[in-house]
Amino acid sequence: MKFATLKSGHPDGRLVVVSRDLSRAADAGAIAPSLREAVERWDEVRAPLQALYDALNAGTAQDAFDFDPAACAAPLPRTWQWCDASAFLNHGRLMERAFNTEPIPDFDTIPVMYQGGSDDFLGPRDDVPLPDESLGIDFEGEFGVITGPVPMGTGAAAALEQVLLLVQINDWSLRKLGPREMKTGFGFFQCKPSTSFAPVAVTPDELGGAWADGRVKLDLHVQWNGAWFGHPNGAEMNYSFGELIAHAARTRRLSAGTVIGSGTVSNESRAAGSACIAERRVIEIIDHGEPRTDFMKFGDRVWMAAQDGQGNTPFGAIDQRVVRAPAAD
Amino acid sequence: MKFATLKSGHPDGRLVVVSRDLSRAADAGAIAPSLREAVERWDEVRAPLQALYDALNAGTAQDAFDFDPAACAAPLPRTWQWCDASAFLNHGRLMERAFNTEPIPDFDTIPVMYQGGSDDFLGPRDDVPLPDESLGIDFEGEFGVITGPVPMGTGAAAALEQVLLLVQINDWSLRKLGPREMKTGFGFFQCKPSTSFAPVAVTPDELGGAWADGRVKLDLHVQWNGAWFGHPNGAEMNYSFGELIAHAARTRRLSAGTVIGSGTVSNESRAAGSACIAERRVIEIIDHGEPRTDFMKFGDRVWMAAQDGQGNTPFGAIDQRVVRAPAAD
Repeated sequence: MKFATLKSGHPDGRLVVVSRDLSRAADAGAIAPSLREAVERWDEVRAPLQALYDALNAGTAQDAFDFDPAACAAPLPRTWQWCDASAFLNHGRLMERAFNTEPIPDFDTIPVMYQGGSDDFLGPRDDVPLPDESLGIDFEGEFGVITGPVPMGTGAAAALEQVLLLVQINDWSLRKLGPREMKTGFGFFQCKPSTSFAPVAVTPDELGGAWADGRVKLDLHVQWNGAWFGHPNGAEMNYSFGELIAHAARTRRLSAGTVIGSGTVSNESRAAGSACIAERRVIEIIDHGEPRTDFMKFGDRVWMAAQDGQGNTPFGAIDQRVVRAPAAD
Repeated sequence: MKFATLKSGHPDGRLVVVSRDLSRAADAGAIAPSLREAVERWDEVRAPLQALYDALNAGTAQDAFDFDPAACAAPLPRTWQWCDASAFLNHGRLMERAFNTEPIPDFDTIPVMYQGGSDDFLGPRDDVPLPDESLGIDFEGEFGVITGPVPMGTGAAAALEQVLLLVQINDWSLRKLGPREMKTGFGFFQCKPSTSFAPVAVTPDELGGAWADGRVKLDLHVQWNGAWFGHPNGAEMNYSFGELIAHAARTRRLSAGTVIGSGTVSNESRAAGSACIAERRVIEIIDHGEPRTDFMKFGDRVWMAAQDGQGNTPFGAIDQRVVRAPAAD
């Protein structure tokens, strides 16, 4: 199944099912008013949502309409918890060089994960308001999962069974604020403004063989101001989503609607490019002794879409512009 | 006004107003089904809630009943965002010695704050399930605020006006997991299990002169297994809640229902004792060369209640027992 959330007067938006080819949509409000409520009542709503999805794909859903990503909020415009890992160790190793930080202990045996703000996710075409161009505005292309309820202490295999939906994420970062926040030991906070999501959340079966080993094995294509920036594949993720969920649930239970992110998708092959600017900059430092690519400016755009071998984009595309935040009163 | 949330079949619980002396309660469901929804529609619900509260205190509210803290969830059993600072620098300085960490840069000019999990708060009498007694189970007595919506870039003075409610918090910590998570730079995660709240959330006016300068100037009394542990006062907070909210909102807007915590209440006077075990342990190290107090064991209880000069406890009391979490399937 494929889902999206249309903007409405309500902060949770309005749930729609989206056809497999992303061309059409149908209101699912009679089954669940929002995706947030659908994942909280998943066992109950799954079958009727599947019936609506099947009818939409068959062209028999009543009141179907053209799907418009520009009308979308994030699939979950807000949720109870957002936990983001750094599960591509190639990225992590490069970032250690970028930030000149101490190697993280147990980096390759225990996932690193930070708690993000989940109250205000951005939709795929929303402008991205930020206070200051000098803060090192960067994108981070990621994959993520939305879970059902996960008891404390759940192991990786059982945790993987609690993956309800897959999503595609841009975890915006303000790089100039990161090193200080890392040094405090309290972790990322101001350096992580609102996170953006591609319009469509999909059940794992929609990816066929590209969902395997608890990983999204698709190329994540990234363009900055229309120019190719990278297309790293999710297959090189060093921890599976099952392992990441289990890490998050070690000392707490996770509520339905928890979003777990992969961290920046990153491949060892230079030909794959990068899914964030900081990674390209550290490669430039390695190659040339200095970074040659600056961070984003107000007005810049970033486009991200995972693609399969046939050029299909199962999550749709993120296509956003960075803008100066309005002054507070 | 004073509010509590009774446990119900719904994860947000059921909103009640509580009389000033905490003896009686009245269902507020006709005005707002939950405190979460009340803070999202604050301008609209404030006057009818005040009328109900006034009637309850006057003994004229219909269907009033005895208030039972044991029937309470946290005032917000779940919310969209929980941001916890370390605003008592006396505590922070001691913890640097406890963890033998590098001094935090700009510690006394920029607040430190971590993003906590907000999906699963514990009520004031709930057992506290944790996976392992050896993880250094510790309590942390704190004050906190629940905000209305705060635009990005709001200054401290305007931020303070967005304080809707005051709360009392036990920010549970697993001390053996903290140092590694601080070293990663990603910050606290597994070392911060679900956070507990005293039963009653109060509007700032309820504290009279004890709410001043954006601080809760009350003694926070802490007992561990019935023995006095400390009664530090909130007046020594080095950053006001206005400054903490402004810090949180520097690069993001905050949704209504955001909880901002003070960090462990801590006073320079040794006579005030401590509001967490780790702080007592580091004082023992300073005095005796080694810690003499162990962390909590399964079955241990902690009691916390802020008191005014007349012995009133405006937030009610947290009184919880630590237990072994059930094994996951």
